[in-house]
Amino acid sequence: MTRFHCLTFLTDYGLEDAFVAVCHAVAFQFAPDIQVTDITHLIPLGDIRRGATVLAQAAPYFPPAVHVAVVDPGVGTARRGVAVAAGDALFVGPDNGLLSVAVAKAGGATRAVSLTNRALWRDTTAATFHGRDIFMPVAARLAAGMPLDDAGEPVEVTSLVTLPQPGYRVTGNGAEAEVVTVDGFGNVQLSLPGADAPQAGLVPGTIVLLAWGDKTLTVPFLTTFGEVAPGEPLCYRDSGDWVAVAVAGGDAARIFGMRPGMKITLTVT
Amino acid sequence: MTRFHCLTFLTDYGLEDAFVAVCHAVAFQFAPDIQVTDITHLIPLGDIRRGATVLAQAAPYFPPAVHVAVVDPGVGTARRGVAVAAGDALFVGPDNGLLSVAVAKAGGATRAVSLTNRALWRDTTAATFHGRDIFMPVAARLAAGMPLDDAGEPVEVTSLVTLPQPGYRVTGNGAEAEVVTVDGFGNVQLSLPGADAPQAGLVPGTIVLLAWGDKTLTVPFLTTFGEVAPGEPLCYRDSGDWVAVAVAGGDAARIFGMRPGMKITLTVT
Amino acid sequence: MTRFHCLTFLTDYGLEDAFVAVCHAVAFQFAPDIQVTDITHLIPLGDIRRGATVLAQAAPYFPPAVHVAVVDPGVGTARRGVAVAAGDALFVGPDNGLLSVAVAKAGGATRAVSLTNRALWRDTTAATFHGRDIFMPVAARLAAGMPLDDAGEPVEVTSLVTLPQPGYRVTGNGAEAEVVTVDGFGNVQLSLPGADAPQAGLVPGTIVLLAWGDKTLTVPFLTTFGEVAPGEPLCYRDSGDWVAVAVAGGDAARIFGMRPGMKITLTVT
Repeated sequence: MTRFHCLTFLTDYGLEDAFVAVCHAVAFQFAPDIQVTDITHLIPLGDIRRGATVLAQAAPYFPPAVHVAVVDPGVGTARRGVAVAAGDALFVGPDNGLLSVAVAKAGGATRAVSLTNRALWRDTTAATFHGRDIFMPVAARLAAGMPLDDAGEPVEVTSLVTLPQPGYRVTGNGAEAEVVTVDGFGNVQLSLPGADAPQAGLVPGTIVLLAWGDKTLTVPFLTTFGEVAPGEPLCYRDSGDWVAVAVAGGDAARIFGMRPGMKITLTVT
Repeated sequence: MTRFHCLTFLTDYGLEDAFVAVCHAVAFQFAPDIQVTDITHLIPLGDIRRGATVLAQAAPYFPPAVHVAVVDPGVGTARRGVAVAAGDALFVGPDNGLLSVAVAKAGGATRAVSLTNRALWRDTTAATFHGRDIFMPVAARLAAGMPLDDAGEPVEVTSLVTLPQPGYRVTGNGAEAEVVTVDGFGNVQLSLPGADAPQAGLVPGTIVLLAWGDKTLTVPFLTTFGEVAPGEPLCYRDSGDWVAVAVAGGDAARIFGMRPGMKITLTVT
Repeated sequence: MTRFHCLTFLTDYGLEDAFVAVCHAVAFQFAPDIQVTDITHLIPLGDIRRGATVLAQAAPYFPPAVHVAVVDPGVGTARRGVAVAAGDALFVGPDNGLLSVAVAKAGGATRAVSLTNRALWRDTTAATFHGRDIFMPVAARLAAGMPLDDAGEPVEVTSLVTLPQPGYRVTGNGAEAEVVTVDGFGNVQLSLPGADAPQAGLVPGTIVLLAWGDKTLTVPFLTTFGEVAPGEPLCYRDSGDWVAVAVAGGDAARIFGMRPGMKITLTVT
């Protein structure tokens, strides 16, 4: 029986309503001493890709934890709820790809169950609030030591929905990549791992020509924001070690019109 | 002597300043091991009705707790501060109706005191920050086991300020109701309890004509958002089991111009 | 060996990303039972003055704590990271003045170290995320009882960067002051201590002529918002006991165009 001290919570519920607190309350009902950490509740409504990205950014830093994530445009329809074991963590949420990036980063799913054990759900289950009525009651019990198999029927880990991961390619003099996500400051994270940057010729001090859509931009490849003047753009390896584009003190995504899914070419000049 | 493990906190203080953290700090002074859960601090400034609604949505899900709520346009004037026992919880805040909906939902006030014991207040009490100087020091001591009567003079529970609850009426082929609140997504909660919906003919699959102000709208009555295409409206029983109007992935309140206090007629067609 | 039960956290990281949660996670790695309280993460990006002001508003109310603050436009450049002992607290963050107002309010720095002990940093230290990689791992260990001297080399407390504190002057019939900060409601805090207000003739019931830039405004000096009608301006001693300008239920800073750094003259009429 594994007990977890930490439970994390990520949703698109926003901070204006009681939704998040209600879920905390339900967690305390089943795991009174659990330490609940909110990752964020400001995922844009229904943006599974963004939710998956942020969950995968946070989860690896936690001690063994139960991670509950709910970005769930299909709530109340046929999509199943799941609990997935990966590494030393459990992930609980809708099986719509939201958990998949974090699960992969934790080494991949080792076991998974479909949350079919209705005895664990709240007595009255609303079709629109599975965070309160299904995911949190199950997750809190798992945190308190309930075996994973008690949560429902085992499912093949290969049957779990996964998001296609954006590709990238190192070329002779740079790389082809894709915009993966934009953070709250407008910094633009690309699908090119920092570890592959040197092979692409992207090392501090080089000058890079960025091309996306019908636009181009020449920026220095540097180590940190402080190396350019406020308002100036740069390319760098970000804190998650992905190649990224930023404007010091500014919003690169807005200024340059870069959005998730866009293809971008980096050419060392 | 009752000790409480949970203390909840709801205000209109916002998240940009130190106000909320200062109140947490004061709670820890008097109850070092208390588990403080923020319900929300984004109640629109001075909106007692909205604060009362959100508090009543959250409080019932908590284990026995002390609930501190401060939406207090009259701070520093003659309105009294109170602590109210209802069900297995205590509610602490200004006596302006803010606590009344949650208190009613907990079964009604069984005892109440006016917070007149100045020995419990902070030494220097600012006229504009009773959350820090009166409500939280008193609430934290109550959570730590101080008897309710020590907080001040007993008052008749019938003397507590209550908000008029919006009415509703089931008609021959539908219902008349009122907009109670709009959540952060723009979902519009009406004053018609979900339990009365079937009697009004509002069951999944029916078509409903909504009329408010000089506008009308025909929507399906369904169970969840996923049953309509993104951008399409629907009527449903929400997660608090009130009849509500929403747009899948959209902001119904803004799109349809529905605001708290508006009368709305539902006719099954 | 001093252990701390509380750790506070203030940044300009925003609430949309995983940055804050990642730092909480790192804290739990080194101090599993620490109670982490967020002061705010909505300091405007890089606004050291605002960060310093808010930190100094919150810190004095906490039990003995380690206060971690990160508003750090110079991250990854030569500016040093420090841990500073003041009063019964420790302050950890960049040495750019951010900590200085709170440190002064706690009685001034008694000891300080430069965070040069790389053995305490995370193995891979990103140039852009010292909150995660340096400040929080060091702070959490300090909270868990690590001696201050283990964090790095001692530095002279007189060498710590401090922000110039805005001045003020009591005149024959009022005062000259400066706008220090604007809170989330638009209330305008001046550099005139409330304790000096009576000497300046500013007592409840007097009428004050405010002059700033090319504008003037006549307002009553009162005790609390509730003493004027909604939408009416007032001058008062705020909850931090600074003289302030507000509009009841409104945004004084926006309405009157008052911004931090502006000189303002108060004349009792």
